[in-house]
Amino acid sequence: MPPRRRTLTTEDYFQGVRAGDTSVLARALTLVESSNLQHQLQAEELLTRLMPFTGKAIRVGITGTPGAGKSTFIEALGLQLVRTGHQVAVLAIDPSSDITGGSILGDKTRMPNLAAEPHAYIRPTASAGTLGGAARRTRESMLVCEAADYDVILIETVGVGQSESYVSHMTDCLVALVSPAGGDELQGIKRGLLEVVDFLVVNKADGELRTACEVAARQYRNALETISGGHTTQNSKVFTASALQNEGIDKIWTAVEQRVARLKANGTLAAHRQSQNRHWLWAIVEERLRQSIYTHADVAKIRPQLEQEVLAGTISVEAAARKILDAYGLRN
Amino acid sequence: MPPRRRTLTTEDYFQGVRAGDTSVLARALTLVESSNLQHQLQAEELLTRLMPFTGKAIRVGITGTPGAGKSTFIEALGLQLVRTGHQVAVLAIDPSSDITGGSILGDKTRMPNLAAEPHAYIRPTASAGTLGGAARRTRESMLVCEAADYDVILIETVGVGQSESYVSHMTDCLVALVSPAGGDELQGIKRGLLEVVDFLVVNKADGELRTACEVAARQYRNALETISGGHTTQNSKVFTASALQNEGIDKIWTAVEQRVARLKANGTLAAHRQSQNRHWLWAIVEERLRQSIYTHADVAKIRPQLEQEVLAGTISVEAAARKILDAYGLRN
Repeated sequence: MPPRRRTLTTEDYFQGVRAGDTSVLARALTLVESSNLQHQLQAEELLTRLMPFTGKAIRVGITGTPGAGKSTFIEALGLQLVRTGHQVAVLAIDPSSDITGGSILGDKTRMPNLAAEPHAYIRPTASAGTLGGAARRTRESMLVCEAADYDVILIETVGVGQSESYVSHMTDCLVALVSPAGGDELQGIKRGLLEVVDFLVVNKADGELRTACEVAARQYRNALETISGGHTTQNSKVFTASALQNEGIDKIWTAVEQRVARLKANGTLAAHRQSQNRHWLWAIVEERLRQSIYTHADVAKIRPQLEQEVLAGTISVEAAARKILDAYGLRN
Repeated sequence: MPPRRRTLTTEDYFQGVRAGDTSVLARALTLVESSNLQHQLQAEELLTRLMPFTGKAIRVGITGTPGAGKSTFIEALGLQLVRTGHQVAVLAIDPSSDITGGSILGDKTRMPNLAAEPHAYIRPTASAGTLGGAARRTRESMLVCEAADYDVILIETVGVGQSESYVSHMTDCLVALVSPAGGDELQGIKRGLLEVVDFLVVNKADGELRTACEVAARQYRNALETISGGHTTQNSKVFTASALQNEGIDKIWTAVEQRVARLKANGTLAAHRQSQNRHWLWAIVEERLRQSIYTHADVAKIRPQLEQEVLAGTISVEAAARKILDAYGLRN
């Protein structure tokens, strides 16, 4: 093991990650997360070297609003996985990390038992800029973890707006946790969520809430059936579970494994991941391009005034857009 | 009126549009749709001049899958509106126009009675590049029509993928048409549609389908209630109508008017439109920026090879992205 804090060469990173050295792994993930250009270049070099060792894990996205019991669920699932011989990495796409400094998700202290397992690795979320940037880094972290021979990657995200879309672009399978609301009402489900997720888990099916969970599951099955035009196969998407009492987790994991095995067998998984890669190639290009205009000095100078004029209606958005592109140096 | 095909100055366009001269209006919309840089610059100039005369119309998006009866519905609604003193412009965002050459939507021949009305203007969809580009041009066409004193703008789009999102970024209100499927089954609804739309109309509530429509409407109400967490106010979003027999159209228009009046009264409409404008400012900037990289000669040269390597997994997407950005001339 290299001495602590010595600058690591790409070769050091590569060897350490491949050897499953968690201190090197942690530093490699820090490298991936860095916004420093030199670090980014080294991270790219490292990722290219690690490429042949990636892709073997089952990649599962786990989403759910705060209060749905994500930490408890991930800990229960993770513990079951390590006990059956898996190596589990837990990562997060945390859209609120620019506000909170990144403490909501991926926090080891929320999963103390899993964090103590030698075959589990929980990455605390770094504070991040945009959601797109956070998602990109999470995807790269996933690849590094795969090269370190983690064979199950759990990617956690809060169910708000775009984050499920990002997580579904990097995983094989998306699980959404919901908790039954009080009474007969179901908690609101974010736009489109029902159709992006592969499995819907009504969590907290224990104690007083058990019946409410069964009712909620039935309602979700009905809603899914309605939305999908009466396809009852949708019913197999909805589960109840109690992460707290460790009930129902095995059924869900079996469903995930079966789904991934089916996708592998019919070639869909490989095609799906290829199209995800092409998606990310251009997503990264577009993100960097976008960043370059938002951080461009001459654009920054005229931006506040122009936005004011657009809001006041004294300039058309088209003319304002052209002024911004002119300031950026683009003529098309 | 200027002689036919004479080159019009921006002042000619301005005067003609403001005077409600439909031949000049048509040419102004052609100018807006042009991909020629000189035309674009003149279109921007025109839009800036027309700005003070825009914003007074009720802007309604109408979406629905093919077969839901959009043409018949828009024609019935349009006829009712012109007969009660409105000036109606029908525009379209046609995501398939790059394939079909733009014949699916906004076609006058599909709405012969409305097309014959002097107070209605139907704009055939121009063939367009990207959906984003088509949406941008439709938004600009809407502004030109407003400046020509059309006080209701109906923007039609096919309910596929992103197009509702675009139309909801330029309208005050989004109506989705669905038709009842045979038997008890409902036709599938696209991801997130239920939550983006303000009103859901089960069309074709006539003859044999009347009962099926009532059943479908009830099921949509239930689905909406489930998704929204039991808010029964959602029920007022679902209507049945027969565009063919001109039944139920008035109720829907009353609901649209009431909604817009409410938004106006509490200041939400102005705020909503301001935020739409800011959205478009950056959407246009980002679209042009994106175009500039996709059409960049040096990028085009390396693109096929790089994409192949990404699909084959011989290069990381990060490294490939950097090569593309390098070829574009961007270093960040």
